Amino acid sequence: MVYKKITLTGTSGESFEDAVDDAIDRAEETIENVHWVEVEEFGVEVASVPGREYQAEVEVAFELEE
Amino acid sequence: MVYKKITLTGTSGESFEDAVDDAIDRAEETIENVHWVEVEEFGVEVASVPGREYQAEVEVAFELEE
Amino acid sequence: MVYKKITLTGTSGESFEDAVDDAIDRAEETIENVHWVEVEEFGVEVASVPGREYQAEVEVAFELEE
Amino acid sequence: MVYKKITLTGTSGESFEDAVDDAIDRAEETIENVHWVEVEEFGVEVASVPGREYQAEVEVAFELEE
Amino acid sequence: MVYKKITLTGTSGESFEDAVDDAIDRAEETIENVHWVEVEEFGVEVASVPGREYQAEVEVAFELEE
Amino acid sequence: MVYKKITLTGTSGESFEDAVDDAIDRAEETIENVHWVEVEEFGVEVASVPGREYQAEVEVAFELEE
Amino acid sequence: MVYKKITLTGTSGESFEDAVDDAIDRAEETIENVHWVEVEEFGVEVASVPGREYQAEVEVAFELEE
Amino acid sequence: MVYKKITLTGTSGESFEDAVDDAIDRAEETIENVHWVEVEEFGVEVASVPGREYQAEVEVAFELEE
Amino acid sequence: MVYKKITLTGTSGESFEDAVDDAIDRAEETIENVHWVEVEEFGVEVASVPGREYQAEVEVAFELEE
Amino acid sequence: MVYKKITLTGTSGESFEDAVDDAIDRAEETIENVHWVEVEEFGVEVASVPGREYQAEVEVAFELEE
Amino acid sequence: MVYKKITLTGTSGESFEDAVDDAIDRAEETIENVHWVEVEEFGVEVASVPGREYQAEVEVAFELEE
Amino acid sequence: MVYKKITLTGTSGESFEDAVDDAIDRAEETIENVHWVEVEEFGVEVASVPGREYQAEVEVAFELEE
Repeated sequence: MVYKKITLTGTSGESFEDAVDDAIDRAEETIENVHWVEVEEFGVEVASVPGREYQAEVEVAFELEE
Repeated sequence: MVYKKITLTGTSGESFEDAVDDAIDRAEETIENVHWVEVEEFGVEVASVPGREYQAEVEVAFELEE
Repeated sequence: MVYKKITLTGTSGESFEDAVDDAIDRAEETIENVHWVEVEEFGVEVASVPGREYQAEVEVAFELEE
Repeated sequence: MVYKKITLTGTSGESFEDAVDDAIDRAEETIENVHWVEVEEFGVEVASVPGREYQAEVEVAFELEE
Repeated sequence: MVYKKITLTGTSGESFEDAVDDAIDRAEETIENVHWVEVEEFGVEVASVPGREYQAEVEVAFELEE
Repeated sequence: MVYKKITLTGTSGESFEDAVDDAIDRAEETIENVHWVEVEEFGVEVASVPGREYQAEVEVAFELEE
Repeated sequence: MVYKKITLTGTSGESFEDAVDDAIDRAEETIENVHWVEVEEFGVEVASVPGREYQAEVEVAFELEE
Repeated sequence: MVYKKITLTGTSGESFEDAVDDAIDRAEETIENVHWVEVEEFGVEVASVPGREYQAEVEVAFELEE
Repeated sequence: MVYKKITLTGTSGESFEDAVDDAIDRAEETIENVHWVEVEEFGVEVASVPGREYQAEVEVAFELEE
Repeated sequence: MVYKKITLTGTSGESFEDAVDDAIDRAEETIENVHWVEVEEFGVEVASVPGREYQAEVEVAFELEE
Repeated sequence: MVYKKITLTGTSGESFEDAVDDAIDRAEETIENVHWVEVEEFGVEVASVPGREYQAEVEVAFELEE
Repeated sequence: MVYKKITLTGTSGESFEDAVDDAIDRAEETIENVHWVEVEEFGVEVASVPGREYQAEVEVAFELEE
């Protein structure tokens, strides 16, 4: 059993949970066996967006098919 | 005055705040003088639970009785 | 173009997002060009407040006027 | 000459070396020019497996074709 | 569900795996629900022992009873 | 031979050494085989105490009985 | 909007900037929306190359198509 | 003698040295006694600028007047 | 309630405590509500001073007025 | 009593323990009072060797003669 | 001008400053141009010494002769 | 095959590459088998030199003779 991790940054106008879920949702569009996620960093973009955009950089771990 | 820290991981289906509170609530069942909490790591369990489970590893600091 | 970062800790009785926003709001009272924010650390104060106080230490980055 | 790194976690019931080799073997099924590997983290899974499962998270570096 | 982590250092004259297992075995003498283990640091004691003693500092995570 | 580490914060109005000793003294009230101590962090509390209070967060390592 | 990061190491006989650009150039051969790059590590290879080879390990962040 | 450090990010279309110098030059417009500078992080902005913009986050240390 | 942190380095010919106090004293000349201090780094200057100069880089946290 | 640490990387075709021992053996050819060893990093060389070469970067601590 | 750093651990029954000075004194027995010292880690040895022994691991930087 | 690493800081009035090369050149005056170099830290000295002096702390790895 071998796992692979990829690094994604999700975004949300609402909350850090939504930003994390945004990244997981995107991963699950193309990956089937997501097992767990580790949060690497939270941030907020202010200047280039209307309002504030919560951002979550996460590592998404999934099982590789044999 | 001496403080001790223990490391707990709380879980919640709702939010990171609830996961942190889950760990503090559990600590306060057996410890009286919780002073502060530091978040060590946030994660999400996906594969072994229905839906998604937010997780928060925290250090809980409390005052030792003299 | 030169950016400067300052380190603030915001607080909230409600959520980590509110604690982060609290710090950004305070920064924007005196600074005009806030560009982005990086979360350095989350914590919870328990002993010296009623209920629980979520805390967020953040670095606030803004553009210096030329 | 450009190298790329991917992050894999190999597993083994026997040893940390086998867990590392498990990850390298899996990488070499689809990648030709593996150059070196850096160990990021060792762990042991206890609850969800029979016996104990040694785990090794590694970064596998390989040369990209031009 | 709340997990707790404790920090142990196991020792072995043979290998790092044995040093890790030494720490887990000791934990399981008094703790029932060990879930996983993270290696924090490997070392070797030379001066105060005959031969060489492999050492493994690990964090042992177990589920707290409700 | 297995060691365990616990995390304590000692305090002193005089010096960092006294703050470290404060934590070790407290540990030795209930633990018999303290072997060594690692300093994790030094700080000073200013607002909530008269004068200044030196603080030392330390990891205290002791040998577990077999 | 979701970003992905990949880790590349570029090389150059001239400078660290060229080594970074080498990695970005390679990324842009197959990726369209590179947004930013973070330098992880600089090094110099001496033994296996004529002269000296500057190396830059970078994380390349790009926007995923929806 | 007391030093203070502030955190600036300089930018340049040419090189990392120029990005560092950009930050120091800006600091010296309003600060007289800059003593030394520590590089915290190098990056490259790609998407929002023409060409590529080298960035250097630095800590600028200067002596406070008594 | 929002806190701000600044980074100062105090110096002393006598001890690390004096170097820390030197930085706090300087901060309190212009700042009213210093709450706590975290030590970032200790060092000793040898070449450019008579004898030895203990140095302490600290983060000084104070409450911002509303 | 003063200790000195040097940084060595040992190699082995067999195991991480052998790579660590390789470094200690080499140190003991010229140093008499090796006290302990800390593992800094494990890796595997793949491209430039037959088979796979386990590597261990370690810090070797020894007592200086007075 | 090129500097070299070596890593020493000094010890003292009295204070952390004495432990640091112990390491510097030892360095200056054989090295002429010590410029500065950075503290890497403080600890206390308890089990193998009478009383308590303060320890300081430091990096000693000195100028190499041309 | 055993490698050793030493820590040097090179300096240059021109660029970070020159500062790194300065350290490697100095190492190769007395060491024959330099294999690779890792950059630990970049800085700039301002106060004690005319103009600005770029500094590079590097680890130089070389093969020990058997």
